[in-house]
Amino acid sequence: MAQPSSHVTAPLKDELDIVIPTIRNLDFLEQWRPFFQPYHLIIVQDGDPSKNILVPDGFDCELYNRNDVNRVLGPKSSCISFKDSACRCFGFLVSKKKYIFTIDDDCFVGKDPSGKEINALAQHIQNLLTPSTPFFFNTLYDPFREGVDFVRGYPFSLRGGVPTAISHGLWLNIPDYDAPTQLVKPLERNTRYVDAVLTIPKGTLFPMCGMNLAFDRELIGPAMYFGLMGDGQPIGRYDDMWAGWCAKVICDHLSLGVKTGLPYIWHSKASNPFVNLKKEYKGIYWQEDIIPFFQSVVLPKDCTTVQQCYLELSKLVKEKLSPVDPYFNKLGDAMVTWIEAWDLLNSPAQEPAAPVDGVKKN
Amino acid sequence: MAQPSSHVTAPLKDELDIVIPTIRNLDFLEQWRPFFQPYHLIIVQDGDPSKNILVPDGFDCELYNRNDVNRVLGPKSSCISFKDSACRCFGFLVSKKKYIFTIDDDCFVGKDPSGKEINALAQHIQNLLTPSTPFFFNTLYDPFREGVDFVRGYPFSLRGGVPTAISHGLWLNIPDYDAPTQLVKPLERNTRYVDAVLTIPKGTLFPMCGMNLAFDRELIGPAMYFGLMGDGQPIGRYDDMWAGWCAKVICDHLSLGVKTGLPYIWHSKASNPFVNLKKEYKGIYWQEDIIPFFQSVVLPKDCTTVQQCYLELSKLVKEKLSPVDPYFNKLGDAMVTWIEAWDLLNSPAQEPAAPVDGVKKN
Repeated sequence: MAQPSSHVTAPLKDELDIVIPTIRNLDFLEQWRPFFQPYHLIIVQDGDPSKNILVPDGFDCELYNRNDVNRVLGPKSSCISFKDSACRCFGFLVSKKKYIFTIDDDCFVGKDPSGKEINALAQHIQNLLTPSTPFFFNTLYDPFREGVDFVRGYPFSLRGGVPTAISHGLWLNIPDYDAPTQLVKPLERNTRYVDAVLTIPKGTLFPMCGMNLAFDRELIGPAMYFGLMGDGQPIGRYDDMWAGWCAKVICDHLSLGVKTGLPYIWHSKASNPFVNLKKEYKGIYWQEDIIPFFQSVVLPKDCTTVQQCYLELSKLVKEKLSPVDPYFNKLGDAMVTWIEAWDLLNSPAQEPAAPVDGVKKN
Repeated sequence: MAQPSSHVTAPLKDELDIVIPTIRNLDFLEQWRPFFQPYHLIIVQDGDPSKNILVPDGFDCELYNRNDVNRVLGPKSSCISFKDSACRCFGFLVSKKKYIFTIDDDCFVGKDPSGKEINALAQHIQNLLTPSTPFFFNTLYDPFREGVDFVRGYPFSLRGGVPTAISHGLWLNIPDYDAPTQLVKPLERNTRYVDAVLTIPKGTLFPMCGMNLAFDRELIGPAMYFGLMGDGQPIGRYDDMWAGWCAKVICDHLSLGVKTGLPYIWHSKASNPFVNLKKEYKGIYWQEDIIPFFQSVVLPKDCTTVQQCYLELSKLVKEKLSPVDPYFNKLGDAMVTWIEAWDLLNSPAQEPAAPVDGVKKN
């Protein structure tokens, strides 16, 4: 293992929040108890606020429903999606921790090939606390893992790496396929455990899935906006993709790293492909324009903070993508509102000591 | 598995040559017999031509020593290195096949985690016959493998992929480390079998190792020049790196793919780190200028063949790298000679039916 510029330490229990969007009870937490119980949970209730969400006993958590979102953000709550897991980004907004791990409520503990249960959170933390190497590809993958290093021909000046902003984990069992692929291959299951973590190189975009995802909120938080999706919007299931495209472009600009690979979770249930197709179909053709847009984005050199980058990106989105659909004008405005909301809740002067008015449980 | 644009077929025994540079006997072939015996071998004898190289019985092979190189190429033989495994590229030159697999004589058959012997050649062929995806990262790795596909958010227009030019395999046991890393970690062994093949994204360079490497000679052959190394040169152990940097830049320009990952071979013996340090030390600091050079190379749009690209690159090498060391003037000239030699032996009009004057064995 190469010398990391920061060292892997204890699992950061006071520096990390687990954010979970849900519309149902949270029984899935029972299986995660050994791994999650030391941490603080932020539950964002997706949909009808009158429904009672049950959290298993013994977890330290706060819960926000739509009424809480409206109360905390006032008119700025318009940037938070309703009836869509995109609402999870409200949890990123109200967290006061340095790190976020977000997971879906149909994700369970996976097992590695030896049969051992995978502590997904610990692996994400290791990914985040060791550097990334976006400028040159290391053929033996993550050089900061035990038992491996940079290979011959890897420039020494690049071996320090850059800080890691995002750790993208994968899924055993049900793969994260789009509706057309789900329809064509209803029985395909992911059984291959690829024992690797790697940095997604600078200049390369990837499809970021929000199911099993961790990030450094201080480094990249304001770019982790999951867009306008679900109720009242023409599109769904592109919330995490949107965040991924924006965040990757900004990470590249600011020389921050994005890793993908380990850890795996066990994804239990394929969502309904017919429902998904309805949510996705506009995204499926819009993305043919969106991807070239993001591939060609150049952010000005004087954008040196994530907020500055994000506001610049919002302008470019309105300018370049509104010809694709008027929706992108609305989305560009929502991106600005999101940054206003972020700054409102996260400015050092106004930082509240306690959670922002959520329902504190347990 | 996504629908590949070409289909994996039988192991191409009449369309592939195995190229092996060696200075010793070729006993290592015994272990490879079940996998290599159906194929034609091209042995390039590294160093003293008076030494007799023993090839195990039953292999269909031709052998070239330095005298053969001089006879075949005449004055153009100056571009072929002497006393260095870089001489292997002479084998690429005289081959008449579409595909090349090249392997070092200290590489043995590896085993997968189930204990099964790995047919490295078959995996390389599979890599070469299925498309690459350099424009967008697929988080479940190679979408053309059995049991996997493109994930949600992967643009459909990019799912056809591009032809694969290079398949870069890896090494169990002795990792391919540079001399400083060998010296610092003499006992480190690679025991991790990462069950993945992936495309190295467009715009990203990688350290290409020649130990376990296959490529499509028709697509990228003229770029697989291993430079001036070894006897009479100020540098060694950068032959494959040089080929990798040049080939990757040209693949990116021509929209060809480069894959890395599976297959693994068992690398038996670490070379002497003190000897390696002597060979490498100039490369170690030169590469700090070479990498930024290759990262910034832009080839003209009217370069539409590998030869055109390579000649253009030779000019840029002389112009931009000769300030680093006069060696790069010589190397730039040798790159031109190499292309002349390539065209001499590979022009359709002059293509000989039989091997070019090598010593035919068995």
